[in-house]
Amino acid sequence: MQRRPFLATLGATAAALTTGARAQEGGEKKLGWALVGLGSLSTHQLAPAFAKTKHCRLSSIVTGTPAKAEEWKKKYSIPDSHVYNYETFDKIAENPDVDVIYVVLPNSMHEEFVIRGAKAGKHVFCEKPMANTADECRRMIAAMKAAGKQLGVGYRCQYEPHHRECMRLAREKTFGDLKFIDAGFGFQIGDPTQWRLRKKLAGGGALMDVGIYALQACRYIAGEEPVEVIAQEVKTDLQKFAEVDETISWSMKFASGVVASVMTTYAFNGANYFTATCQGGRFGMDPAYSYDGLKGWTSRPDVKIEFPAVDHFATEMDAFAEAVIAGKPFAPSGEEGLKDLLVIEAIYQSIKEGKAVKVGAV
Amino acid sequence: MQRRPFLATLGATAAALTTGARAQEGGEKKLGWALVGLGSLSTHQLAPAFAKTKHCRLSSIVTGTPAKAEEWKKKYSIPDSHVYNYETFDKIAENPDVDVIYVVLPNSMHEEFVIRGAKAGKHVFCEKPMANTADECRRMIAAMKAAGKQLGVGYRCQYEPHHRECMRLAREKTFGDLKFIDAGFGFQIGDPTQWRLRKKLAGGGALMDVGIYALQACRYIAGEEPVEVIAQEVKTDLQKFAEVDETISWSMKFASGVVASVMTTYAFNGANYFTATCQGGRFGMDPAYSYDGLKGWTSRPDVKIEFPAVDHFATEMDAFAEAVIAGKPFAPSGEEGLKDLLVIEAIYQSIKEGKAVKVGAV
Repeated sequence: MQRRPFLATLGATAAALTTGARAQEGGEKKLGWALVGLGSLSTHQLAPAFAKTKHCRLSSIVTGTPAKAEEWKKKYSIPDSHVYNYETFDKIAENPDVDVIYVVLPNSMHEEFVIRGAKAGKHVFCEKPMANTADECRRMIAAMKAAGKQLGVGYRCQYEPHHRECMRLAREKTFGDLKFIDAGFGFQIGDPTQWRLRKKLAGGGALMDVGIYALQACRYIAGEEPVEVIAQEVKTDLQKFAEVDETISWSMKFASGVVASVMTTYAFNGANYFTATCQGGRFGMDPAYSYDGLKGWTSRPDVKIEFPAVDHFATEMDAFAEAVIAGKPFAPSGEEGLKDLLVIEAIYQSIKEGKAVKVGAV
Repeated sequence: MQRRPFLATLGATAAALTTGARAQEGGEKKLGWALVGLGSLSTHQLAPAFAKTKHCRLSSIVTGTPAKAEEWKKKYSIPDSHVYNYETFDKIAENPDVDVIYVVLPNSMHEEFVIRGAKAGKHVFCEKPMANTADECRRMIAAMKAAGKQLGVGYRCQYEPHHRECMRLAREKTFGDLKFIDAGFGFQIGDPTQWRLRKKLAGGGALMDVGIYALQACRYIAGEEPVEVIAQEVKTDLQKFAEVDETISWSMKFASGVVASVMTTYAFNGANYFTATCQGGRFGMDPAYSYDGLKGWTSRPDVKIEFPAVDHFATEMDAFAEAVIAGKPFAPSGEEGLKDLLVIEAIYQSIKEGKAVKVGAV
């Protein structure tokens, strides 16, 4: 708090009540979102997605780069009063036009800005991975709980229709009991200077960035938590991947006996799938995690997984907005983010120690 | 040798020379095969396959069950002089009508009968897995080498056209450098009293029996040997799988940096695949290891993997017969069988110790 003397907790709470009331009073009203961090995802996916939402509008921006601020102000008609940098960020508490803060910063900055968002009395939506460690997640959850505001994590696939249908097939046991999941996601990463290759900023490499999608798929298809993991890492480019993981293959078992075999990589394109093998058949997706072009399949001609494409970001933002407006808990929340980090920490520990590792408790 | 005083080494060598000469003198002549062990595979696959070969004929049978001997004698017109049991087996050395001994016994009996076949001066073809341990494989290889006869291992997929095409695509780098292999094979095993569920006879469970196909695929697609494995086992039926493994998921890395994520099971049907992810595309098979109905696929519409069905057993027996007739070394030989056992031993050790394990040297 000493770093941010201008943030009055009482003021923040009052603002929160105000925006909450505003959000709830009119179904037609769109929630105002502040985008924190104007990198590639914000520029190419999130900003354009607002136009496709029902309940969201881009209200404010937070950036450390004045030139970006100028560009966005013009492009999205954002008044000066709605532009913040990382120092002035906490003044957002006084802006009733901001209902939700969307943290799109490098992973290592998520904790700070989610907690500052909580203290500003705003609902917070945080990109995945939620943070670099499980402990960071715990502090973020506690801060949001103390603020009485919702915390959502940007697991866009959880609101994507093909994935939701796969969850339903698993939950309703359309193909019988689930037995095995095979999943992988990776791509060949470009620019060697980007923050995703710096451990301090990204927390890790492919696993933190894209392996988490495959891990997510295993967890939401299984509908339970992995209890033990064993993992193996390969590095072929020691310079590019000096600080973070390049390719990881891991196996994890769930208490029910379901097993998952999973991989992730920053070294090559192509792996973008999950397959659920059940007692009476199989279903899956390939490609599974791209922004578009997703394809579902099943082993039964009469069961299809086909849906029109949706904008993943617009869909998840609307889902979060609807939960906020209705005052209902949103999932995936911070606890979902924490659960992934617990598995990720176990995977890294398994690689480091060359041993099977139990997944830590929430 | 003391156990088998009736086997004269000199006589065996003479017989070997005789049959070798016979085989080589006429291209049209078919090699005489002795089937050792008349279980399900011999009954339903191998015996009918002889009629589909060019260079093989069923000459003799070896069985511990007199009733089976009677049945087979009638069905395949086998004279009494060509029927052996496990005690009289070594007299096969004196039968010039036997060129090749095909060992189709429970895994634990492979070593004994391959070595006895070697001492009988016959070429030997041995079902997979070659044996229960790498040391057994080493002794089998040494015995065959001492006998100067060929040893082949029944890896039927290595002569199946879809698999051979996949090997070619990998070797010729049609899709660029190989990066990752994802493979699995399993089925729901029936009769709980069968020898495959007894550790003493089978050496292990799903991994020894069907996981070895997925392991094989990884090795022949990669074209190199795995150097380290990590593995995880799940057991859901402690009674049925009291002695052997039920479901195993493992990862293995190769010296080049290629990684393979593999699974096997005796608990459920459906997993029957491999996928090779390369720098510039993907290819694979699903189903990959069944006796028929195999399907290949690639990520490029202009590269197809489509072949007419072949009888896997007739094809591999002919390939072995051709090598014998030509006097050329056959692959997959005993060393190939040994290499799989080295990986299998590393997988079991990894499960037992919960650790990453280096694959042993040949």
